[in-house]
Amino acid sequence: MRGYDTSEFQSRTERAQRRMSEAGLSALLLTTEPEIRYFTGYLTRFWESPTRPWFLIVPASGKPIAVIPSIGAALMAQTWVDDIRTWSAPDLSDDGVSLLAATLREICPRDAVIGLPDGHETHVRMPLADFQRLQDLLEGRRLVSDQGILRGLRMIKSPAEISKIEMACDIAGRAFQRLPEIAREGVALDEVFRRFQMLCLDEGADWVPYLAGGAEQGGYTDVISPARSSPLMPGDVLMLDTGLIWDGYFCDFDRNWSVGPASVQVRDAYATLIEASDAAFEAARPGATASEVYHVMNTVLSRVSSETDAGRLGHGLGMSLTEWPSLIPTDHTVLAPGMVLTLEPGIAVGGKILVHEENIVITEGSPRFISPRAGAELPQI
Amino acid sequence: MRGYDTSEFQSRTERAQRRMSEAGLSALLLTTEPEIRYFTGYLTRFWESPTRPWFLIVPASGKPIAVIPSIGAALMAQTWVDDIRTWSAPDLSDDGVSLLAATLREICPRDAVIGLPDGHETHVRMPLADFQRLQDLLEGRRLVSDQGILRGLRMIKSPAEISKIEMACDIAGRAFQRLPEIAREGVALDEVFRRFQMLCLDEGADWVPYLAGGAEQGGYTDVISPARSSPLMPGDVLMLDTGLIWDGYFCDFDRNWSVGPASVQVRDAYATLIEASDAAFEAARPGATASEVYHVMNTVLSRVSSETDAGRLGHGLGMSLTEWPSLIPTDHTVLAPGMVLTLEPGIAVGGKILVHEENIVITEGSPRFISPRAGAELPQI
Repeated sequence: MRGYDTSEFQSRTERAQRRMSEAGLSALLLTTEPEIRYFTGYLTRFWESPTRPWFLIVPASGKPIAVIPSIGAALMAQTWVDDIRTWSAPDLSDDGVSLLAATLREICPRDAVIGLPDGHETHVRMPLADFQRLQDLLEGRRLVSDQGILRGLRMIKSPAEISKIEMACDIAGRAFQRLPEIAREGVALDEVFRRFQMLCLDEGADWVPYLAGGAEQGGYTDVISPARSSPLMPGDVLMLDTGLIWDGYFCDFDRNWSVGPASVQVRDAYATLIEASDAAFEAARPGATASEVYHVMNTVLSRVSSETDAGRLGHGLGMSLTEWPSLIPTDHTVLAPGMVLTLEPGIAVGGKILVHEENIVITEGSPRFISPRAGAELPQI
Repeated sequence: MRGYDTSEFQSRTERAQRRMSEAGLSALLLTTEPEIRYFTGYLTRFWESPTRPWFLIVPASGKPIAVIPSIGAALMAQTWVDDIRTWSAPDLSDDGVSLLAATLREICPRDAVIGLPDGHETHVRMPLADFQRLQDLLEGRRLVSDQGILRGLRMIKSPAEISKIEMACDIAGRAFQRLPEIAREGVALDEVFRRFQMLCLDEGADWVPYLAGGAEQGGYTDVISPARSSPLMPGDVLMLDTGLIWDGYFCDFDRNWSVGPASVQVRDAYATLIEASDAAFEAARPGATASEVYHVMNTVLSRVSSETDAGRLGHGLGMSLTEWPSLIPTDHTVLAPGMVLTLEPGIAVGGKILVHEENIVITEGSPRFISPRAGAELPQI
């Protein structure tokens, strides 16, 4: 089912309001796509345009209030939000700032403290000059940190959210299965990238915001480069890592293939990656920390390799391609049922790297693979 | 040709530095994808991940300096940038902030003024708390507005940039030509969306970040909604508006089709849209203003219709789907050769809207259509 029952948004809003009350916040001010969608279901690809700012206010009680460009009014009116205030954007002299300030003044007392996400992995999506002007217009009301409320809420997914991520994973899994249709020795890597995105769409993706990968002899140099036009050659390891979307939710996992037979070194390295992600899978239970899952993987990997440059061995995912927590030594987030994680071990081998990635859901007991769990043998095309 | 000669980046940097000198800025600090790519050519889809901040400093003289997560070092090293400073991100206690501050302290005198884009259509892509901490670490150096330097530079495209946008337009034009292969009465709109993205890829798009549209009886309700699963019916007007990418540059134009014969009212409204964009085309010459081009279109449109909710009748495009200027009454930007614009008239008809969009380049004389100029007759499928 696309979308949600209204109860989903009621529940999210009430949970936010309980935490706001505990934190002494009179409202939340939100400016980015996932933050606004989280409380409204407002889903559009129009965010690709950087021109217009969009604002959502979560008040201390009651439904969220949208302060948005008029071009979005019709679509916002289809959500559960009733209070939709619009201006004709772009407005070069006042792009929603005075309307936003007036709304905040109306619903917040003069000494109010208003939270906005200001920590790791966030940004404020409005012009800095407008943000400074907004503060001046609040007449004593202060904009402060949301104290991680958004992060805490979004990190635990509802069953309905998880089933959307699973749908995205299923679509990507079927596209990866069909990879041999489009990739073989002699086909250019950029052609593989184009055709793979077509496979994702053919299998039911709404769109394919993210595709990265590589194909070089015995591994690849990094995992974020665009595809080159050089053809696949025997001895290349091809990796594709996709974040496709279904109903606003991402999957994020990769697959590797050897073009022709792989060397023993590459096969062993790949088997080590699978061993690392399997070990992390076993460890990823409620009560364990992100750091502990990192160390479980790193113990396996460091038997044979130094670290890669990736900076982490996995992360959360959901409405964004990457979300909290990070599987790094210093992230002590305690895992809890409803978290969706990627396990993404990487290994350096002969001057190249190999990276494997799976997606799992944390449950009360063992986690559950939602990407099609890979075996220890590197597949060959 | 993909990418650019190094001279393109030298020229962009030198032009920035001349303007910085005039404005009294010791450096520019840039945080977003197009800003950083503009001076480096650093092209990756990895920006889809909101986790890591990225920084580029344009000093008063010499090449830009990259302060970036280590995961990006290998790809950045392929650009013309030599000075690449990295940290292992994500770092929950110091995500590049002290490294960035140290770099700015090193290259800027203590009383320096550092510009960053803070105006319309910009945002600072780093956590707000980190931005505040950065200011504290600059020991007297001040972060201020870039005074529109980035906007001014990016608004005028080089011949090499224009040919990339033309390539994107050509790809979309071929995909639109093939629309009858995938859309007819009875096909669900969301299936049309999926298949159209596949056509874009098949015709050579690197990826398809933006697709919007609609299909309802005699028009559509807005132009930003995701596709519904309802099938196309006789009397629907189908509109698809795509921003696909080739080598980092967007096209942004739409096409309309009538499913079966269109009513006289719809045909007339469509012809009025074409008349409006043709009139704007004639007016869009160096020396004219964005406002004047708006009024030329609005004069045609207001003969038959009140305004839609779109807020403008066209805009710039390039590395972003939408850029400066805006075709609105209050934007007095003077058109100049090298600007790439969309002409996007919209019309209200019988409770629905119709929108047409073309892409043009401003030249010394007449502008040039880079989308395949549409005729006055609404095509039928």
